[in-house]
Amino acid sequence: MLMYDLIIYDCHILTPDNHIRRNYDLVIDAGKIADLQPTGQIDLGQAHELLEGREMVAMPGLINTHAHVPMVIFRGLAEDISIERWFNEFMWPLESNLIEEDVYWGMLLGLVEMIEAGVTTVADHYFFMDQAAKAVEQAGMRAALGWAVFGSQGYGALDETAAFVERWQGRANGRITTWMAPHAPYTCADDFLRATVAHAKRLGVGIHIHAAEEIGQTQASLQKRGLTPIQVLAQTGMLDVPLIIAHGCGILPQDIDLLKQAAAPVGIAHAPKTYLKLGMGLTPILPLREAGIPVGLATDGAVSNNTLDIFESLRLMAMLQKHEARNPEIMTIPQALEIATRDSAAVVGLADKIGQITPGYLADIILVDLSGAHHQPLHSLTASLVYNTRASDVQTVIINGEIIMRDRHILTLDKAEIIRQVNCSMERLAQRVPDKRIQVYNP
Amino acid sequence: MLMYDLIIYDCHILTPDNHIRRNYDLVIDAGKIADLQPTGQIDLGQAHELLEGREMVAMPGLINTHAHVPMVIFRGLAEDISIERWFNEFMWPLESNLIEEDVYWGMLLGLVEMIEAGVTTVADHYFFMDQAAKAVEQAGMRAALGWAVFGSQGYGALDETAAFVERWQGRANGRITTWMAPHAPYTCADDFLRATVAHAKRLGVGIHIHAAEEIGQTQASLQKRGLTPIQVLAQTGMLDVPLIIAHGCGILPQDIDLLKQAAAPVGIAHAPKTYLKLGMGLTPILPLREAGIPVGLATDGAVSNNTLDIFESLRLMAMLQKHEARNPEIMTIPQALEIATRDSAAVVGLADKIGQITPGYLADIILVDLSGAHHQPLHSLTASLVYNTRASDVQTVIINGEIIMRDRHILTLDKAEIIRQVNCSMERLAQRVPDKRIQVYNP
Repeated sequence: MLMYDLIIYDCHILTPDNHIRRNYDLVIDAGKIADLQPTGQIDLGQAHELLEGREMVAMPGLINTHAHVPMVIFRGLAEDISIERWFNEFMWPLESNLIEEDVYWGMLLGLVEMIEAGVTTVADHYFFMDQAAKAVEQAGMRAALGWAVFGSQGYGALDETAAFVERWQGRANGRITTWMAPHAPYTCADDFLRATVAHAKRLGVGIHIHAAEEIGQTQASLQKRGLTPIQVLAQTGMLDVPLIIAHGCGILPQDIDLLKQAAAPVGIAHAPKTYLKLGMGLTPILPLREAGIPVGLATDGAVSNNTLDIFESLRLMAMLQKHEARNPEIMTIPQALEIATRDSAAVVGLADKIGQITPGYLADIILVDLSGAHHQPLHSLTASLVYNTRASDVQTVIINGEIIMRDRHILTLDKAEIIRQVNCSMERLAQRVPDKRIQVYNP
Repeated sequence: MLMYDLIIYDCHILTPDNHIRRNYDLVIDAGKIADLQPTGQIDLGQAHELLEGREMVAMPGLINTHAHVPMVIFRGLAEDISIERWFNEFMWPLESNLIEEDVYWGMLLGLVEMIEAGVTTVADHYFFMDQAAKAVEQAGMRAALGWAVFGSQGYGALDETAAFVERWQGRANGRITTWMAPHAPYTCADDFLRATVAHAKRLGVGIHIHAAEEIGQTQASLQKRGLTPIQVLAQTGMLDVPLIIAHGCGILPQDIDLLKQAAAPVGIAHAPKTYLKLGMGLTPILPLREAGIPVGLATDGAVSNNTLDIFESLRLMAMLQKHEARNPEIMTIPQALEIATRDSAAVVGLADKIGQITPGYLADIILVDLSGAHHQPLHSLTASLVYNTRASDVQTVIINGEIIMRDRHILTLDKAEIIRQVNCSMERLAQRVPDKRIQVYNP
């Protein structure tokens, strides 16, 4: 008899067009989705392992298209302040305290938080990324990792980030992809960006960068050099390789035309909680989508977002689009779910592998429990996924066909030990030494 | 030896000025807060009952200053539509299906959801309110209840809502207060509002009403009769009795001057999730607060908000104020917590009884567990309360000195049976009969 690795039986399934099929069985084998059928048609005896899915929705694992996961170690340290003070008086001074070990434990802590919240893939942009990669490998997570670099660090540092790309590309059973990760046009000179593109082309990878984070940056760039940050990306060849642009709240209409003509895939990472908290405005999602440029959900780091909760990003994204347009009919539930699933997969360059429950796709699946009082009665399961679901409703997390969390218990990591280790360094990490910072914010 | 009803030991306490005192013991007796002392100073043998508070914050129970709790039975039925269609094609047709029993079970379901989310007081505005009051009594909740009435129902109906006020005022060990509850100036003629004021004065109670819900209503009122909705309230004597005004997104600067001069306490209920989802704009919180008019947090009903989660309202309120002003330095964490606690208590007329952990105040207290990965490391407990806390972090709920939820298990209600009962009526409740509605929206 043909045996499968895993069958999830009697669950509801979120379809690729973002509707619900009730009472289905989902077959997983060799890390991929093998089959889905109405409950009762598949012989459950064919499974090495069974998971019951009653009152749960099986949906694609959530994708965090832009984060600085290890920053969880600093969360709560920079509140109610301007973006300039956030960088210059808090974030960049705090980051001068970082040692390799902090990144390892911080990454693990952030991975615990994300797995518990149903995130199965993260595009991370930070320092000491060998440590982050090691943590991803242990956790069983999928990740698109880039070692962040400022122009001020010089070409030697850039070469090292390229060496990281080579070292980890395709590792952890293919769960890790690697990206070049220059910080931003306002911290990297044009030649530095061009050198990054050369590395990306040589290595066959993409680039993950911050750009046009808010309109003030765009205005400063226009004033200093007559070019928007997106025009700088175009002129330095960045649009010739796959590109993740973080934030883009300062993207102008002419920038969208440029992005539309990009020679390689480009996607925008949207982290609404950060934008609200720092008063940055919002990414122009509707015109970007109209131009065919995918927008994905993100959290950014936990010092601005405070948490790494993509269900919260999803809900905020949808509600804020309605609010800004004063039009409740836009950004419908299926559209919001499309952004959370297929479009987020496209942003991290994995549109043909994750983000939908379709046979042949990788088995990155979460089971969301909709039996709680805050979902009942369940007139609309998709409305509940967008507007009612809390991170704590995620019951089970499967990545690459492996069960990573079962009944809210993470199987791959020792959560208590991770929290203990992070707490040991709290005091050292919170110190801000006058004039000690890794960079100055002056876009 | 002097014996107390309950001691919560070794918790952190949110102070009335919204900072944290670490490691305190909290003494509760005869339904009130009796004492608080640094851990170790009180003899725990003096307590009939003990609760451990390690890694938890004891804070005032949350207050939902405006809801239609039983509407949970319709949640998810009216998504992605305009406010006109929301009322005329969905909400008011759906409410023609209501029978008394629906309100009873719906109220119980909503109370379960709120208690699980740390809400200990709700100002509710709905129909068949004897059923709602019965549910509140059973749940052990605190509530300010008003029987909603439209002018089209006539003075007989108004008299019945006044009879409800008399019937339930002070019942359930004082946990229930009652309010008159005319729907809105656009659905109640001036004389009807005047008659409501007469009832309120005669009964010594306040009035809970919707007004200036969004700017379109204000403009329509100005066009039709040259008065803003708030001016209508002033002219009909509504400002001479305690008043809860729901929403107020259409309040103009001249309205704020009027409210400032009100002869009796007036407060505004702010339900941001509803406003985002329906594109209604936002309550002008900052000028209201500057004028000394308290603004409280609310959810509105679950057909617009989808959930009854005041932690979500708190977070949205704070973030949206920063966003609208493009200024991250406003609506600081202590200010946001002030709105969630003392100001919300003021809105529901209980400023001297609830909303702070101070000896002599009623013991409406929740324990929030901050040990989860999404709070760690805990550099700032107050930042975590505003920006990280999920409803599911609420561990224990105490109302009037009674433990209502312990370790996330509600002691007063049978949750499974309530969900079963609501599900029995789902199909009937979801029907929309053409042209059958309880009212027409045409402000």
